[in-house]
Amino acid sequence: MNTQAALIDLNCDMGESYGRFQIGNDEAIFPYISSSNIACGFHGGDPLHIENTIRLALKHRVRIGAHPSYPDLSGFGRRKMHLPAAELEAVVKYQVAALKGMVESHGATLAYVKPHGALYNTAADEEETCRLIISAIQALDPRLALMGLAGSTMEQVARQQGIEFIAEAFADRTYTPQGRLLPRSQPHAVIYEPEQAVKQVLDIALRQHVLSAGGLMVPVHAQSICIHGDNPAAVPILQALHAAFETHHIQLINQRDAARG
Amino acid sequence: MNTQAALIDLNCDMGESYGRFQIGNDEAIFPYISSSNIACGFHGGDPLHIENTIRLALKHRVRIGAHPSYPDLSGFGRRKMHLPAAELEAVVKYQVAALKGMVESHGATLAYVKPHGALYNTAADEEETCRLIISAIQALDPRLALMGLAGSTMEQVARQQGIEFIAEAFADRTYTPQGRLLPRSQPHAVIYEPEQAVKQVLDIALRQHVLSAGGLMVPVHAQSICIHGDNPAAVPILQALHAAFETHHIQLINQRDAARG
Amino acid sequence: MNTQAALIDLNCDMGESYGRFQIGNDEAIFPYISSSNIACGFHGGDPLHIENTIRLALKHRVRIGAHPSYPDLSGFGRRKMHLPAAELEAVVKYQVAALKGMVESHGATLAYVKPHGALYNTAADEEETCRLIISAIQALDPRLALMGLAGSTMEQVARQQGIEFIAEAFADRTYTPQGRLLPRSQPHAVIYEPEQAVKQVLDIALRQHVLSAGGLMVPVHAQSICIHGDNPAAVPILQALHAAFETHHIQLINQRDAARG
Amino acid sequence: MNTQAALIDLNCDMGESYGRFQIGNDEAIFPYISSSNIACGFHGGDPLHIENTIRLALKHRVRIGAHPSYPDLSGFGRRKMHLPAAELEAVVKYQVAALKGMVESHGATLAYVKPHGALYNTAADEEETCRLIISAIQALDPRLALMGLAGSTMEQVARQQGIEFIAEAFADRTYTPQGRLLPRSQPHAVIYEPEQAVKQVLDIALRQHVLSAGGLMVPVHAQSICIHGDNPAAVPILQALHAAFETHHIQLINQRDAARG
Repeated sequence: MNTQAALIDLNCDMGESYGRFQIGNDEAIFPYISSSNIACGFHGGDPLHIENTIRLALKHRVRIGAHPSYPDLSGFGRRKMHLPAAELEAVVKYQVAALKGMVESHGATLAYVKPHGALYNTAADEEETCRLIISAIQALDPRLALMGLAGSTMEQVARQQGIEFIAEAFADRTYTPQGRLLPRSQPHAVIYEPEQAVKQVLDIALRQHVLSAGGLMVPVHAQSICIHGDNPAAVPILQALHAAFETHHIQLINQRDAARG
Repeated sequence: MNTQAALIDLNCDMGESYGRFQIGNDEAIFPYISSSNIACGFHGGDPLHIENTIRLALKHRVRIGAHPSYPDLSGFGRRKMHLPAAELEAVVKYQVAALKGMVESHGATLAYVKPHGALYNTAADEEETCRLIISAIQALDPRLALMGLAGSTMEQVARQQGIEFIAEAFADRTYTPQGRLLPRSQPHAVIYEPEQAVKQVLDIALRQHVLSAGGLMVPVHAQSICIHGDNPAAVPILQALHAAFETHHIQLINQRDAARG
Repeated sequence: MNTQAALIDLNCDMGESYGRFQIGNDEAIFPYISSSNIACGFHGGDPLHIENTIRLALKHRVRIGAHPSYPDLSGFGRRKMHLPAAELEAVVKYQVAALKGMVESHGATLAYVKPHGALYNTAADEEETCRLIISAIQALDPRLALMGLAGSTMEQVARQQGIEFIAEAFADRTYTPQGRLLPRSQPHAVIYEPEQAVKQVLDIALRQHVLSAGGLMVPVHAQSICIHGDNPAAVPILQALHAAFETHHIQLINQRDAARG
Repeated sequence: MNTQAALIDLNCDMGESYGRFQIGNDEAIFPYISSSNIACGFHGGDPLHIENTIRLALKHRVRIGAHPSYPDLSGFGRRKMHLPAAELEAVVKYQVAALKGMVESHGATLAYVKPHGALYNTAADEEETCRLIISAIQALDPRLALMGLAGSTMEQVARQQGIEFIAEAFADRTYTPQGRLLPRSQPHAVIYEPEQAVKQVLDIALRQHVLSAGGLMVPVHAQSICIHGDNPAAVPILQALHAAFETHHIQLINQRDAARG
């Protein structure tokens, strides 16, 4: 570390409520994050919740990304779907276009796209899905970045296709010795203790590694840290992270620059 | 009429198919029209059909408008819904934003917005609904025009709010002596005979009036003529209109200028 | 009151969660109620939540009613919709049939139907809507009862059509001097204090009247008391009601007989 | 063949229209079939179309089956979905319950269940999916039969679980030498010539075999023949089949007995 403050990004999925169906605790989380992945209507997020979430993000000077999904409201986008290539590309383009226009209607800028749920996981492993997502994004706006799993196939494809990539790591998920996320079905897959989350984030932010489930150090190169809004400990974890960031002279990106990415 | 050719616009609702559910006969109609009102996903039109319809419009050099609806797929947007003001505005903004982005991803420009079905009829009569629609549109892009019923409340509100208004009249619907459309429940509400439709369109285009159900001449000032894609006689009517336009030196707008409105 | 215990029914809307979208606190409420109005999928309640809610109702020996709605997931069935008569009848029949079959698959019996939200309010006032709902119910099973607002048009139509009617009153809503519910937009429309709710329920159960917003006593003849599951004080109110019922020798219907209504 | 007339069943998917989205040509097909697989709302078929299709089936004395699907309206149920076991079972139960109740509201009887699209194909190959479908059906009514691909895993599981199985073969699809259907992506996968369809059906009905794509005779033991309603030649094929049946003394099941299968 040099004397300059390190910069980190904290991102969280937002705006996933639908009609009277509430999900997450957006108002409590916004003050602590620097990037918000806003649902686009296909797994959650009706137009009014999207609009209100954009307003909240702007009020808190939080960067905005689009969070498109497979079209699966009843499954919350967590089930892999088998869409033909042209349909998948159109589905992503439609959602990102909707969010982009709504953000721009407030004089603001959409900064990036982060696929949601099963689409995220599929894109982390499958080149074809990555390419379709990137193709949709680049047709809309070549300045948009793509956010995805650090070290994944998605990162490789993004580098090849020339789209800016925001590699993300996780504050509240345990890693395997292979650098993947321990499946939620395993014990200790989710981290609830703020101190443990802080340790993991500092390891990633300052030392570019993480202590995996097996006790091995695994290298992780990430520009953004994801915290899950549905983790019941999300707010305490975020508060502990902010305290630790102050101690270690780490700044959130929007403390320095709330403008586009 | 001076020696210059009169200019007219022919518009039709397009892209309303949803998944394997086909509606309309878009491929047969595109060659004859100059403006296409493309569904935005809420009454019909999934992302892939929208994408393919945009491609067809560009291929035929047809102007593109967004055709937003109440959120009512099972009712095809034909039932009035009672949405709170903020929700209605967000619903329109989301749909127009999606279409706008998708059109721009092809290097083209969205030219106007025409509300669909029950939203169209409500906006024709109710100022509040008009204002919300216009507010959503202007926040997205102040250059967008609004298309709606000639002589309606919508036209007045549009003029007051300073949004360009494209007044439309109907080729295949009978008018009442008050200048409104005869409800579909009445006999002879829909015109199926090409000669009758041609007479009505020429009256509107060249003489700014129409012969109403009661035999009275009613003034109609319209820049665009709508033909319904689900009228089984749509193609013969369009062919007859093109023949008549040649005779009367009337040009479609995209014969002279396929660029933005 | 004679020496026999009075019988009362406590009903609550249940099973309204949809996919990962949770609504209500069903597990905490089931121990305190005697009738559950289970969502049928059109405003909330996917098949798995319906199935699990039926299991919970049976475990707690709680009577089951179907809670059909207008088809409006994004509006939670709270917006009046204008459906043609044949469509409304089919929409109700489909939902009640689904719930009836699912209940019977557990060897249990569906006891009644209570319309939800805007459909409830429309049916409380409009004869035509009532008749269509009753026609759908009676075609499915003439032994089904209808639950609705005590003293409403719905009660009159139900008596005329010969369907058993369960008149309900509200534990946690303030009444107008006309015996209607004070709209939620008014102050004090919802009752949050358990003692106040207990007083209102005892007035209804023992004295067949209620103290209205204007201070007038209004007669209310009800066989069932509704408590709203989304009232944050629902559980404390229910606990206070149970304590008061013990003091006043009032029994819940399922304490005596958990079988069909 | 003895001197008694052979009995055959002709089945077709019906009631798949949704709102104003029309699919198929039900009115033209009903006079020629003996079993109708009626959509249940999850891939097509809103409540009103279901109700009207039930009426048509009863008018034509055609046997009624439920045609449940994965919950995928935009994909018409043709995409495999990965539902947890309890959810899949509930999804099937809900749909069959809805159709069963609606049929019984007309004093008629639901005879069988035929899974739709991707659910059909998954169930043809995977025991677990079969078992869940059968479990849902048997909980609703143990007299219901299951219709599925002749010779498939589904047939085996059905025999094991003790549910009546209606093995079906296809009039208008080419078979592989392994007795499976040639994928639609292959040339000649769909049969459009009535004479060819007649030959195939007579082979199946009278000789229990079919001539496969490779020229091999493949044994097929089926009690029902499916004709696809979206085959543009469906009506001519059905007319040719009826003529051939007369010549060969083959009767449709509902010519002898329109009651429950």
